[in-house]
Amino acid sequence: MKKSFISYSPDCPFPIQNIPFGVFSTAGNPPHIGVAIGDQVLDLTILQQHGLFPGDWFQAANLNKFLATGPQNWRDTRRNIQELLDSETPTLRDNPKLRTAALISQSAVTMHLPVEIGDYTDFYSSREHATNVGAMFRDPANALLPNWLHLPVAYHGRASSVVVSGTPIRRPCGQTKADDKELPSFTPSRLLDFELEVGCIVGTGNTLGEPIPVDKAHEHIFGLVLVNDWSARDIQKWEYVPLGPFLGKNLGTSISPWVVTLGALEEFRVAGPTQDPAPLPYLRSTGDWNYNIELEVQIKTTAGPNWNPIARGNFRTMYWNICQQLAHHTSNGCNLRPGDLIASGTISGPSPDSYGSLLELTWKGTKPLKLSGGEERTFLRDGDAVRMTGSAKGNGYIIGFGDVIGAVEPAIRDERLIVER
Amino acid sequence: MKKSFISYSPDCPFPIQNIPFGVFSTAGNPPHIGVAIGDQVLDLTILQQHGLFPGDWFQAANLNKFLATGPQNWRDTRRNIQELLDSETPTLRDNPKLRTAALISQSAVTMHLPVEIGDYTDFYSSREHATNVGAMFRDPANALLPNWLHLPVAYHGRASSVVVSGTPIRRPCGQTKADDKELPSFTPSRLLDFELEVGCIVGTGNTLGEPIPVDKAHEHIFGLVLVNDWSARDIQKWEYVPLGPFLGKNLGTSISPWVVTLGALEEFRVAGPTQDPAPLPYLRSTGDWNYNIELEVQIKTTAGPNWNPIARGNFRTMYWNICQQLAHHTSNGCNLRPGDLIASGTISGPSPDSYGSLLELTWKGTKPLKLSGGEERTFLRDGDAVRMTGSAKGNGYIIGFGDVIGAVEPAIRDERLIVER
Repeated sequence: MKKSFISYSPDCPFPIQNIPFGVFSTAGNPPHIGVAIGDQVLDLTILQQHGLFPGDWFQAANLNKFLATGPQNWRDTRRNIQELLDSETPTLRDNPKLRTAALISQSAVTMHLPVEIGDYTDFYSSREHATNVGAMFRDPANALLPNWLHLPVAYHGRASSVVVSGTPIRRPCGQTKADDKELPSFTPSRLLDFELEVGCIVGTGNTLGEPIPVDKAHEHIFGLVLVNDWSARDIQKWEYVPLGPFLGKNLGTSISPWVVTLGALEEFRVAGPTQDPAPLPYLRSTGDWNYNIELEVQIKTTAGPNWNPIARGNFRTMYWNICQQLAHHTSNGCNLRPGDLIASGTISGPSPDSYGSLLELTWKGTKPLKLSGGEERTFLRDGDAVRMTGSAKGNGYIIGFGDVIGAVEPAIRDERLIVER
Repeated sequence: MKKSFISYSPDCPFPIQNIPFGVFSTAGNPPHIGVAIGDQVLDLTILQQHGLFPGDWFQAANLNKFLATGPQNWRDTRRNIQELLDSETPTLRDNPKLRTAALISQSAVTMHLPVEIGDYTDFYSSREHATNVGAMFRDPANALLPNWLHLPVAYHGRASSVVVSGTPIRRPCGQTKADDKELPSFTPSRLLDFELEVGCIVGTGNTLGEPIPVDKAHEHIFGLVLVNDWSARDIQKWEYVPLGPFLGKNLGTSISPWVVTLGALEEFRVAGPTQDPAPLPYLRSTGDWNYNIELEVQIKTTAGPNWNPIARGNFRTMYWNICQQLAHHTSNGCNLRPGDLIASGTISGPSPDSYGSLLELTWKGTKPLKLSGGEERTFLRDGDAVRMTGSAKGNGYIIGFGDVIGAVEPAIRDERLIVER
């Protein structure tokens, strides 16, 4: 098994088998590109300046230029980094000056968005989630809409409000309408929620008008991140017909800072659920394109220091896989660009403790969650923090995603604008 | 009345009263920033290099940096350009070398997207359009959904597939389902349509979490463009529940290359329709924020050289104005950025010849349009070109938008993927 001269424990999310890419900065300095190894960051911007990598893709404040170089270069570069970090390779190991320059403790860096996101798309690809939502808001007997089993439903999200883990999320104000009222209100959202998702970071894109075939889709995906797609359910409910969610979603979307490459996840590919009816030919992917990645959601309140685990799921449960999503997205010629974010939609498993949102976990607020210290939650309160983690468990090592964390700040409440009905 | 030393006819869309901003290139050269004057382009990138403008915002391939400088600088700069082009100002008029360097015939330039669009939002703000669509697809007696009169409904569009006027639009393939069939098909779209819209180009944005008040919204809008939001109605119809339009829209969106500033349109501000019920306080705009801009749609087919006028509308008919749209968009703290595109939604007036889409003009294809030469159209055929124009008529001059044009290319048809049911 590969071993690095950087030491770390067996449960470290960032062993030499992982090598996730991100963007970081140290105090007073511009952002650099790096990979996580153990509890360190390896500075690729510096190493490229020292001639350890060709090209100039790491002389940038985001990964977009590197992504555009294509899958062969992603693979080669990751292999070169693994070689450089290998316990048998003296280049960096035995060069104290270069080690000092290129290895920084993760505790000393600020992480940034890894990519400049041109467009953010959000799918709706968990059958259990779509079924839960359909049962709650429409008809339990016909929970899935007629198109759902034929195509991976998706909508456009907002790119500007995608933020990196750690960024506070302000409770939004918005227009809502109670079922028993004739007229709408404008107040801070009362039903603020998270959504547990995994997102693809697009590597290479396509030309407008030219679809990406389903069997080439994986070559266009650089890697995966964890996504918390914050949702204001009361705003969403009133606004979403007929054009879909808007202000209920674009208040903020948090992503984990380290992009775990598809290369690192190769051995965790598994078959997805059986698809019946069989998808149309343009959606027929061959091979296994689901991923065995365990996911967990935790909440911490202002009442105490404990993280309360509230949901455990697995990315492998998704009905539509990432290759089908990409093929569908581009089937009309829509162009993807390096750095685009394509999220899975809320990941809910079959059991109630695997649901990926408070909406489902508390069944529309009817079944409050019990937290440590006797607290309860239906939806998020000010000060609540949400943490999501993901890991693929290999033989003797873990491919981890790190966390995506965010805490809820109180709304800006302008009394002249508030109308409560 | 202002007069330029550049001569042009009274019906020229680009008199000295206009000064719209755009991005152009000449053969073999990188893009420059310019304004249209008569049938010329004035090269601001060159003029700034000659010291005629402070700063470096015109040393760029798009307007984003200039937009970020804010409304006072937009006004000052436009006034300086008008002064420079004034018949009484010798600076450029009497400097043949500078004139040769900085004035280029519009026929000799290629126009590009004027801005890098971070996010594209599409509203749905024409009451007549929403009523027509609701009557066709839902219930004529309750055509408007309950939220429509309370908030400006909108959804996120796709930024990557926004293209500049003149770019061909490829007919998309996509999944559709006939009402009398049990299973969906995958074929080239049969119901390709245009949508006549006007779009705001955001000048200065806002910080995530901090709304823009409705009475400050106009200071965040740099100017307007014409928008053709191409739509595949058959794809849209099958995919759009519950999350809204996706592949039916992101096949392409065309915009006119010249951004007409709000400054140039100041005297064309008019009151909008009476809003009843009164909007909530956060949507109460003061003053007149509709614009008297005449719009026309024309079609040309491969059968002949004639442009057939098929619809005439006016931007003044919009129910929700641009300040209300911006205030709503940011009411939850969603952040806008310089260069964002915020389109109006299809602009349909009260009379059938003022409808802004073929869907409405032909009433779902039941009333074909008669074109010159005996041709008929319900939806667009391959080779059809669509042209949209806009103009505000002043006293002795016209503030024109130029055109947004696009022609339909045949679909890429991969027989292995086609399924016709």
